[in-house]
Amino acid sequence: MIDLLVCYDVATTTEGGRRRLRRVAKVCVAHGQRVQNSVFEVSVTDTQLLTLRQKLLDILDPTEDSIRLYRLRQPRDSFVEAYGRDQYVNFSDPLIL
Amino acid sequence: MIDLLVCYDVATTTEGGRRRLRRVAKVCVAHGQRVQNSVFEVSVTDTQLLTLRQKLLDILDPTEDSIRLYRLRQPRDSFVEAYGRDQYVNFSDPLIL
Repeated sequence: MIDLLVCYDVATTTEGGRRRLRRVAKVCVAHGQRVQNSVFEVSVTDTQLLTLRQKLLDILDPTEDSIRLYRLRQPRDSFVEAYGRDQYVNFSDPLIL
Repeated sequence: MIDLLVCYDVATTTEGGRRRLRRVAKVCVAHGQRVQNSVFEVSVTDTQLLTLRQKLLDILDPTEDSIRLYRLRQPRDSFVEAYGRDQYVNFSDPLIL
């Protein structure tokens, strides 16, 4: 499995931006967890990565948004440090589209 | 050098949150670049990492914000994909405190 960090930068000051972030969240959470409002840790196979990337690119507004995908070092838990608000916070954006 | 991704999640709907994000940006940009509004790629030595971590924790409001530090795989360029808005966008938040 490939451990991947998905960082999706979008202006949530517009309804369109909020909607795109909700769609990105739905796609990513199917393969992992939301760790910040616009950051997701996912684990995918090579084939799933192809599908995930395509879905993200279909959602992306290339003039407004930025997506960055980082392949994480494994085991992931050894290479991440987290501080502050609990990662399992209940994000206010509902994931229903 | 350690390649590190700093993800700083903060509510920018408050002036306090925006101020903390500006301070985090200033600390991180000293060691790298801002690639999204709240995501930074930095390169630090072991000693600089200690200082950077402490500065970030001094800024953090642990009830409101979340900081995640990921040690990136090297060479970093081989393990990151970027789409959409140019990473060198001129972020609207001035970095002056």
